[in-house]
Amino acid sequence: MYRSHNCGELNASHINTEVTLAGWVQKSRDKGFMNWVDLRDRYGVTQLVFDESRTDKAVFELAKTLGREFVIQAKGTVIEREAKNKNMATGDIEILVSELNILNAALLPPFTIEDETDGGEELRMKYRYLDIRRNPVKNALLFRHKVAMEVRKFLSDQDFCEVETPYLIKSTPEGARDFVVPSRMNAGQFYALPQSPQTFKQLLMVGGMDKYFQIVKCFRDEDLRADRQPEFTQIDCEMAFVEQEDILNVFEGLTRHLLKELKGIEVEKFPRMTYDHAMKTYGNDKPDIRFGMEFGELNAVAQHKDFGVFNSAELVVGIAAPKCGEMTRKEIDALIEWVKRPQIGASGMVYVKCNEDGTYKSSVDKFYDQEDLQQWAAVTGAKAGDMIFVLSGPADKTRTQLSALRMELATRLGLRNPEVFAPLWVVDFPLLEKDEDGNRWHAMHHPFTSPKPEDMALLETDPGKVRANAYDMVLNGNEIGGGSIRIHDKATQQLMFKYLGFNEEEARNQFGFLMDAFQFGAPPHGGLAFGLDRLVAILGGQETIRDFIAFPKNNSGRDVMIDAPSAIDGKQLEELSIALK
Amino acid sequence: MYRSHNCGELNASHINTEVTLAGWVQKSRDKGFMNWVDLRDRYGVTQLVFDESRTDKAVFELAKTLGREFVIQAKGTVIEREAKNKNMATGDIEILVSELNILNAALLPPFTIEDETDGGEELRMKYRYLDIRRNPVKNALLFRHKVAMEVRKFLSDQDFCEVETPYLIKSTPEGARDFVVPSRMNAGQFYALPQSPQTFKQLLMVGGMDKYFQIVKCFRDEDLRADRQPEFTQIDCEMAFVEQEDILNVFEGLTRHLLKELKGIEVEKFPRMTYDHAMKTYGNDKPDIRFGMEFGELNAVAQHKDFGVFNSAELVVGIAAPKCGEMTRKEIDALIEWVKRPQIGASGMVYVKCNEDGTYKSSVDKFYDQEDLQQWAAVTGAKAGDMIFVLSGPADKTRTQLSALRMELATRLGLRNPEVFAPLWVVDFPLLEKDEDGNRWHAMHHPFTSPKPEDMALLETDPGKVRANAYDMVLNGNEIGGGSIRIHDKATQQLMFKYLGFNEEEARNQFGFLMDAFQFGAPPHGGLAFGLDRLVAILGGQETIRDFIAFPKNNSGRDVMIDAPSAIDGKQLEELSIALK
Repeated sequence: MYRSHNCGELNASHINTEVTLAGWVQKSRDKGFMNWVDLRDRYGVTQLVFDESRTDKAVFELAKTLGREFVIQAKGTVIEREAKNKNMATGDIEILVSELNILNAALLPPFTIEDETDGGEELRMKYRYLDIRRNPVKNALLFRHKVAMEVRKFLSDQDFCEVETPYLIKSTPEGARDFVVPSRMNAGQFYALPQSPQTFKQLLMVGGMDKYFQIVKCFRDEDLRADRQPEFTQIDCEMAFVEQEDILNVFEGLTRHLLKELKGIEVEKFPRMTYDHAMKTYGNDKPDIRFGMEFGELNAVAQHKDFGVFNSAELVVGIAAPKCGEMTRKEIDALIEWVKRPQIGASGMVYVKCNEDGTYKSSVDKFYDQEDLQQWAAVTGAKAGDMIFVLSGPADKTRTQLSALRMELATRLGLRNPEVFAPLWVVDFPLLEKDEDGNRWHAMHHPFTSPKPEDMALLETDPGKVRANAYDMVLNGNEIGGGSIRIHDKATQQLMFKYLGFNEEEARNQFGFLMDAFQFGAPPHGGLAFGLDRLVAILGGQETIRDFIAFPKNNSGRDVMIDAPSAIDGKQLEELSIALK
Repeated sequence: MYRSHNCGELNASHINTEVTLAGWVQKSRDKGFMNWVDLRDRYGVTQLVFDESRTDKAVFELAKTLGREFVIQAKGTVIEREAKNKNMATGDIEILVSELNILNAALLPPFTIEDETDGGEELRMKYRYLDIRRNPVKNALLFRHKVAMEVRKFLSDQDFCEVETPYLIKSTPEGARDFVVPSRMNAGQFYALPQSPQTFKQLLMVGGMDKYFQIVKCFRDEDLRADRQPEFTQIDCEMAFVEQEDILNVFEGLTRHLLKELKGIEVEKFPRMTYDHAMKTYGNDKPDIRFGMEFGELNAVAQHKDFGVFNSAELVVGIAAPKCGEMTRKEIDALIEWVKRPQIGASGMVYVKCNEDGTYKSSVDKFYDQEDLQQWAAVTGAKAGDMIFVLSGPADKTRTQLSALRMELATRLGLRNPEVFAPLWVVDFPLLEKDEDGNRWHAMHHPFTSPKPEDMALLETDPGKVRANAYDMVLNGNEIGGGSIRIHDKATQQLMFKYLGFNEEEARNQFGFLMDAFQFGAPPHGGLAFGLDRLVAILGGQETIRDFIAFPKNNSGRDVMIDAPSAIDGKQLEELSIALK
């Protein structure tokens, strides 16, 4: 061992102990006759002291040559520090060094290894190994490990068995785009990397494995939006002989366990909300319920007056922004411009100031009297001192716009405290949704999700109205998990593929093995999957996932540190029986 | 929940309890007025009873329709069984069923779901979900989960942090063949799937992560020998600020922990053996030391007589097979044929029978007298009643042949008891070995392994003699783990690439990021990796890994259940900018 202790553990109880430490030079202060070096490792920082009057001359001189990020080993005696630092775990002591070895020199790092660094995103990614030395990244990785350990412990204690499913599987055209892997031994054929272990976990249920989980990498070759990665990690779970209620209880239990163990927070039983309710009340299927600002539908009280914009709208809907009554005209105008940006797409916005004296002042005073506006306030729950914002237009679009405004206002008002946790379940998702060009129904969750039995008849008459046994866990405005009760009989699964527009041969080619399996005694089953990257980021109080991933890729799917992907040589292509186009 | 209890937990203490069970029909015995059904789930088997005189008529009739592997739910009362079955955890009771639901019917399975099945390998793989219902496979998967949990617990308790490294990395021509993944967003470029997270774990050490581990899938596109898989799982570990001794201690501790927790076995401190000693004594760098039969080199005592075969041989070497003195001439001849098979390749074999009366009878009595043969017995450690087998020829080849014979004899003699565990460390591996055509040196472990400092000078003069700081953990004749102290400075790493025949540009292209990293303060570090598939198989007392992998591939790298790999459509190829050749 290069060390007897780490750099985070020595304190006054160790005074006079001979110790050996090893680590990186965080910084040094050379006062001529005295020289202090902050030595850092994963566990903390300890101050080394070199004193011309007490330190061997060669050691003293060598200490003067140390640069930032040099890797050194220092032997010495723990002594009491004169100027104690109460902000440091080791702040009561320092090491009077008697022996010093430079284990490795270091070039000046391209950015400072400090909590607040001067390195931009690209530079930090290129030198990720240096970035990981910084506390925010290091702590994020340690935190992620803790979360994963607690997940495994909790599930394992409840008889869940972690089973590794294969990474080299079969490409299916359904869903997102697959990453594929050409097979050398089976020329002209390809494996695919799993978008999720969905079919395998279902086969494990057919195999009697009963309670399965896996923390597993999944892959999607999608154009990367901000904060998405081509490879991401799922906590993938499945249970047999259960109903939706059982699954919600188990995984609510898991989430409560994580909040308690990792954050010391006890949360109440999770509220449940139907998809329809979430959409109507928050314009969003993953509502942030840390704050109110629920939607008030104003059609009944705002239409049939002389304001044509509202009269012609499918939906008139507003929210009360708390304590925003004092916004200036300029601020309001800026907010109106904000909702009119193409990303939001509103055509305009009406506002109503709720004065402290109980009167109202609106941008549509021409059309509405005080009594009208009081009704608006009642519907949106606005109090004196609030400001009501109202949008109108086609229902779905307008709800989405108002949801964006609600989140933006909440952020500005400081209502999205990352250390407050408000989980909920959203249930009763629609089974099907129209694809983007509106021509074809596709599965909202995936084609293995079971419809609610009582809605089966609607499949023929009104497919959009069929509800699924599907559910999402939502935390602070993020979907952190989602799942469903699955279809477990061949006939229903075949019917589902038919409704989704698969012809029989396609369905057979892609999922024949699953339908075969259903014939050999498939139990009722269901499950869900959590997105681990997002989950740890939210539990860690962060907005972005990138610091919680050791070696993330950039928005072009590149690892800029190792410079991947890259060209491969002709011989490799030849062996794989493929050519570049 | 479809059940109140599982099928393995009910016993006499539950008599008169109302219960609901769910599971698969293992078998039923219909005696006309009575009908017994064995109901199976992951946890065990419970007997259901349907009695014409006590069971509702509809339920009684429905029970008669149940076929093997039907999925059912049964409600009823726990009653005492008349004919108790002491071999079953639930053998004291049975369930008098009052309500029966068929949850899913089942076709007759293509092989029996019994511990000893009539299904061949291919059939079991095609219907792996049925195979997993069988105890040997199910228990293997549950055991694997337990091993993985214990590994994580042990390492986590010692401050190791599990870090997920990326799966989409960069192809390197060194080592085995990579699986590659064409990039759509970076046309003409490819990711590679990792053969191991080697460089990433080293970068984590540069990043100060100090104690890293990961249970992780790795990929090698090699022609598959028996019991190899294109994707396999490693317990990958790395530590900074350590020497070889520290690493051996930590991972010896891990292995002892596993043997204790999973097998209830306490093992002594692991013996250590140099590579040279292992090769000389066992002809093998992964010796099975559950039994003796150590090699005795006979050159000194068998050469310079009149037996030309031995006189001209580089090495004459023998082993004493215990209690084999009574082998018949026919058995000996068969064994001689066995060593002469092309897979072994010996040109012949000499034997010496050690009679109970202290005399010897050999196949070379013409050339050697009793005194000579007594010396052979002394060198090989043969006792009265043993048989000495002697091979001769080129040293390396002859040792390999004798090693094969040693293992074969031990197997035949029942000396390889899978419930006895004899771990050891093999250390001081050579740094380099010649490639197959003997033209070029390549790294025996990998190019990041550090040479022993005292052997550095030999790199120029006698590269084959340079020893590495490399070690393997061996268990019962299998290498279950291997690792090394790494190079951690740029100059040595560059030198190593030079000796391995990389030109500077190649080295820069492939591993520039690692050499850059070494300049920014790399600590001394090293680690090792265990093969999890093999480890769990050996701990589970099995020779082959296949039952310990949920969904293995066959020897052509195919998943015959899902039929992968498979063709992908033209649109996918086009998006990836590749074509079939």
